[in-house]
Amino acid sequence: MADTVRELPSEIAGYGAVRPYTGAFDNLGTLRRAVRTVHAARPGSDKVLPDIDAAIRACDLRDGAVISFHHHLRNGDGVLNHVLDAVARAGLRDITVAASALFPVHAPLIGHIRSGVVTGLAASTIYGPLAKAISHGILARPVLMYTHGGRARCIESGDLRIDVAFVAAPTADAYGNLTGSVGRAACGPLGYAVTDAQGAERVVAITDTLVPYPAVPIEIGQDWVDFVVAVDSIGDPSQIVSGTTMATTNPVALDIADTAARVIAASGLLEDGFSFQTGAGGASLAAAAYLGRIMSERGVQGSFAAGGITAGIVEMFDAGLFRALMDVQAFDHAAVDSFRRSEAHQTMSASMYANPHNRGCVVNRIDATILGAAEIDRAFDVNVTTGTDGVILGGSGGHADTAAGAKLTVITTSLAAGRHAKVVERVTTRTTPGETVDVVVTDGGIAVNPRRPELAERLHAAGLPLTTIDALANRAAELAPVPPRDRSHDGRIVAVVEYRDGTVIDVVRAVPET
Amino acid sequence: MADTVRELPSEIAGYGAVRPYTGAFDNLGTLRRAVRTVHAARPGSDKVLPDIDAAIRACDLRDGAVISFHHHLRNGDGVLNHVLDAVARAGLRDITVAASALFPVHAPLIGHIRSGVVTGLAASTIYGPLAKAISHGILARPVLMYTHGGRARCIESGDLRIDVAFVAAPTADAYGNLTGSVGRAACGPLGYAVTDAQGAERVVAITDTLVPYPAVPIEIGQDWVDFVVAVDSIGDPSQIVSGTTMATTNPVALDIADTAARVIAASGLLEDGFSFQTGAGGASLAAAAYLGRIMSERGVQGSFAAGGITAGIVEMFDAGLFRALMDVQAFDHAAVDSFRRSEAHQTMSASMYANPHNRGCVVNRIDATILGAAEIDRAFDVNVTTGTDGVILGGSGGHADTAAGAKLTVITTSLAAGRHAKVVERVTTRTTPGETVDVVVTDGGIAVNPRRPELAERLHAAGLPLTTIDALANRAAELAPVPPRDRSHDGRIVAVVEYRDGTVIDVVRAVPET
Repeated sequence: MADTVRELPSEIAGYGAVRPYTGAFDNLGTLRRAVRTVHAARPGSDKVLPDIDAAIRACDLRDGAVISFHHHLRNGDGVLNHVLDAVARAGLRDITVAASALFPVHAPLIGHIRSGVVTGLAASTIYGPLAKAISHGILARPVLMYTHGGRARCIESGDLRIDVAFVAAPTADAYGNLTGSVGRAACGPLGYAVTDAQGAERVVAITDTLVPYPAVPIEIGQDWVDFVVAVDSIGDPSQIVSGTTMATTNPVALDIADTAARVIAASGLLEDGFSFQTGAGGASLAAAAYLGRIMSERGVQGSFAAGGITAGIVEMFDAGLFRALMDVQAFDHAAVDSFRRSEAHQTMSASMYANPHNRGCVVNRIDATILGAAEIDRAFDVNVTTGTDGVILGGSGGHADTAAGAKLTVITTSLAAGRHAKVVERVTTRTTPGETVDVVVTDGGIAVNPRRPELAERLHAAGLPLTTIDALANRAAELAPVPPRDRSHDGRIVAVVEYRDGTVIDVVRAVPET
Repeated sequence: MADTVRELPSEIAGYGAVRPYTGAFDNLGTLRRAVRTVHAARPGSDKVLPDIDAAIRACDLRDGAVISFHHHLRNGDGVLNHVLDAVARAGLRDITVAASALFPVHAPLIGHIRSGVVTGLAASTIYGPLAKAISHGILARPVLMYTHGGRARCIESGDLRIDVAFVAAPTADAYGNLTGSVGRAACGPLGYAVTDAQGAERVVAITDTLVPYPAVPIEIGQDWVDFVVAVDSIGDPSQIVSGTTMATTNPVALDIADTAARVIAASGLLEDGFSFQTGAGGASLAAAAYLGRIMSERGVQGSFAAGGITAGIVEMFDAGLFRALMDVQAFDHAAVDSFRRSEAHQTMSASMYANPHNRGCVVNRIDATILGAAEIDRAFDVNVTTGTDGVILGGSGGHADTAAGAKLTVITTSLAAGRHAKVVERVTTRTTPGETVDVVVTDGGIAVNPRRPELAERLHAAGLPLTTIDALANRAAELAPVPPRDRSHDGRIVAVVEYRDGTVIDVVRAVPET
């Protein structure tokens, strides 16, 4: 539809031809996955190499290569920085880093970009100093910002060709069987790494816990791993809980969370077999707790909760509110522990989780999801990619995936934060299209997407305070009377925001340093 | 080497160009895996179809298609016959059935071949009336006989393109998550089916136990399954134990088994970390028991046992003789039960098990294996494909794979069976090349492959009765003075025996009906 198509160039230098986003479910059907190159192991050959430098040589890594990383250790990850240092020592240039997500701990990438070692980046979310540097134009080529499902899609399709995947493995054996369940830096499921290992031409496992063969329970099998390197530490597991995974204590946020739970309760979906996912935002986590209380009161037993899994979700699972957990990544140590002890706490690959181009991903089975927003606009489009200042502050992660799959997508946000409106005329950057958003819950009331009149009726019947998105936007503008930022001085495209199907849903442009 | 190359045509009608076998490890290195076609699911779409006929329509199955089946239910499998009946009802012709193995229960295939519904077959082993019918020329096109690892290889490489894989699933949910751990026909791991599901264009799960979503523990994820069909019964699980998986009580066989265990004990490999696989033959199973006794006496803790897993191996695992089991397929109910209850009883896909063209399969990690033989010859070549009468009686299964991977491959056989020698001048059909066989243990003594002088020394030092393969062949000829069958009346090629790397190691020709 015309109203959802942003003006995009037909070609972006350093990215290529642009296929513009046209609709959330426009590019399904019959698809082809790429030819894969593998290097067959000879019986008796050894996979263990003395260090990362040796692995880089063994993989025959060249200038211009694409290397990948996963973010199960989140802000505690030590592997990406170690590898990039080794890449720099090897004298390599023009490397593209295709990460599942990048955290403040990865700020040293800035140095590698400045020195020309790294000239390309791709990530589903980028936090911290690196995000700021990108927004200020540190890279000549635009960053590719995919969704978690879109990343799996483009690896499988061959749109993203990974030369070498580096897998941070909490436990490995000498022949490359890997598990995240146990080890000094146990992180739980290795869902993002599974997709990398199956897609890359070469796979290097880096571990600080090398155990006798076989490293059971195996999550990534030896048939996917070329080399194994033992290091002193793959990172700091205490930093798995970081940033967005803390629950809120803000009373306004708690009130929004409570209302979001009541929206779900009134939606008609909260019956036996109910399935649920929250984002990692503070309000979302609080909403899960309220929802759990309603489920207990009603005696509803859910089928599963999905996502990154948190302590709050584990509590609901342990209380019998869900029969299973579908987990691509543990968000805290309670989730790591639950994954280790519970058979019904299942791992899933990034593709199984959220890839729109397979035979059916888990987000397709979610009844209700509660997600956050940096901004939401009159078209229900959501921005979790940039701040109102235009600077990158995150990215989709699974946001756009979950919204597309879930029967009911609830966005929670305050009307304004400080002097800036959060319900706006038009989002700074479109991450998640409004057609996949059903309702927004704010401290100024609830607005239902006009595409969902039957939902509005149900919420109205339940006595929930409904208003319209326009009324919310008007109220937000009153509360935060700062005019939208003047974007006329923004520069070239610094990031391309891909929707999960590989179409371009928006771009991020360079903003001047302030 | 010239002495291991059999005369083969350069082209076989109905098969294509022949790449002759040249050596067990000649075709490794860098390889390409095929482009895959997938059909992306639309959120909200349903995968459950009312019956197999509907699944055939939904998959748009056409004349000339290739459909695949796995053999986890062995002689109890009910799915293949059900599907072929539906294929016939649909009026389809010229179908190729690519099975992992075919059993006596699949004899109704003969009728579908006679009627022209099925015109092509591929299987790693074929037992029963169908094997006989093939040897007598029922099919115009030769049957492809691959190894278990070779089957995974050719599916991944695209040499074998599967249009629709039919997966017999002991438990499934409505969105295609599958497990073999539980259900009315629980069969344990689904290792062969994993490779089919990942390789086929369409995947149909057929189950008699449809459970609420998600069907945990998930072995094959929903992202690999297009459709789900619930039927009354997928087969008779009591028939999983059948044929070759019964332990022997024959005193000569027991004596051979005891000697085989002592060969391993004297080989230098029986130390902590020892790994082991047996075939499913009676003598092999008995040998495992003897080996377990030696391990207990010596206080050796093995790392893992692999393969199809049997009650005997489970006993060793439960006694702590192995830390883990690597299981592609349960051979009996004790193995099914162990798989359900033990985390260290791991599943593995057919590719992870034995595919020579991945980054390292499990057979590469096996220290010692004990395998059977229909015949073994002066070049240590082994035949498990045909009888001395030239009629197909099995096939490699994992025989050639395990022999290639293991450090020590022990073949056990009696010198003769009835009037037929088993240690022969030249095997009727070459299944497993002699260069991958280290020692043969018979009721007439032990012969070590001259390629392994250091092994001969160790066995000699341990006081084991060594002789030569020529002496064994001569003695067998004396015991069973029937001259080799006159093969001059054999007809056209009815089966092509592929080595695990896709080269042709032998062919089977039609034999006249007697």
